[in-house]
Amino acid sequence: MNIAEHFPIYNELTPEEQRLIDNSAFSRDIKKGTLIHNDNSECLGLTIITDGQLRAYKTSEDGREITLFRLLEYDICLFSTSCTMQSFRADVTIVAEKDSTVIVIPAHVYEQLAATSIKLVTYASEVMANHFSDVMWLLEQIMWKSFDKRLAAFLVEESYLENSTTLKITHELIANHLGTAREVVTRMLKYFQNEEYINLTRGTIDIIDLPKLKNY
Amino acid sequence: MNIAEHFPIYNELTPEEQRLIDNSAFSRDIKKGTLIHNDNSECLGLTIITDGQLRAYKTSEDGREITLFRLLEYDICLFSTSCTMQSFRADVTIVAEKDSTVIVIPAHVYEQLAATSIKLVTYASEVMANHFSDVMWLLEQIMWKSFDKRLAAFLVEESYLENSTTLKITHELIANHLGTAREVVTRMLKYFQNEEYINLTRGTIDIIDLPKLKNY
Repeated sequence: MNIAEHFPIYNELTPEEQRLIDNSAFSRDIKKGTLIHNDNSECLGLTIITDGQLRAYKTSEDGREITLFRLLEYDICLFSTSCTMQSFRADVTIVAEKDSTVIVIPAHVYEQLAATSIKLVTYASEVMANHFSDVMWLLEQIMWKSFDKRLAAFLVEESYLENSTTLKITHELIANHLGTAREVVTRMLKYFQNEEYINLTRGTIDIIDLPKLKNY
Repeated sequence: MNIAEHFPIYNELTPEEQRLIDNSAFSRDIKKGTLIHNDNSECLGLTIITDGQLRAYKTSEDGREITLFRLLEYDICLFSTSCTMQSFRADVTIVAEKDSTVIVIPAHVYEQLAATSIKLVTYASEVMANHFSDVMWLLEQIMWKSFDKRLAAFLVEESYLENSTTLKITHELIANHLGTAREVVTRMLKYFQNEEYINLTRGTIDIIDLPKLKNY
């Protein structure tokens, strides 16, 4: 477990603060699908992703979903420390979207560090500002970008995350990412197929014209 | 100008930090409609509202608007310090919605304080978490709440902010708050009139059944 590599401000902390982290942080392998955080879960602590992919999303009362952002290697999940921040009423769910490895600085240690280390608080504040910016961007997309453009952008992003033009993903799952109904996704994917941007087979979407999707 | 009254953490700062604020902060009267901050404006600094009402909103490329939140007395506007935070790419516009009075801690002073005062950084982080929570709430509303419910909630909120059941507001302006088209607002207001929740006259909306709107 190499904390300094994945937690850039580690080197800026005092030896005492570093020791506190060294003595309490632990690495954890997380299977795809595992719940990392929601409003009812225990407060894990500061979670640093060293491998894999987490998904942060919101759920409506009747179970609909929309993806807020993804956390990849080197990203920091701040929501799992939200119990230490009384102003943070975000009600976000975080799950492992792929098999992942994370380093966790336990919540009580994080709280202790945040009371004394201005470096850490400033860093956490930058991370929050980043998440905030992501959600602002999403709000704009939802308000003012038509669904076909959002779907095209999603397929391009997925292709980038999977490093492949063959996406094994159901229409239902795409609908959950984009906060819409499965039928809406299916209809638009068929349109993209007719335009020869993609090819649909059972459970798979083959992107055959990535540049067209990118510029859609 | 009483900073301590409107800036709760002032009393927790060191005498030196307090002096820095005393020597640089200034009060400013702002006329209704004045632009306080957007992405092109100079970076004002930490803005504390001592009287009046500011509106934070986003604008689309083609000029449509949606209100993110309002800032009232005792609220802090963090966006006007966003130049000091590189991760904050929010592109938010802030205008005075009523004649207002603010206390400003200039950006360079704020930056200086934020480098040394963990109290201030922690406080600013709490304010940001609050704004973040507001925007998360808005995202939920837009995704999963029907427009009639959002309009009813908006009329109730306006009535609260104006301390009156007579609202002098155009349909166009409501559309800008809620991120929709004027026609959509007009149609729904007429429906509310038919249901005898409100009464429409030129430029005015009279709320005649506030409890019904609240529980809508």
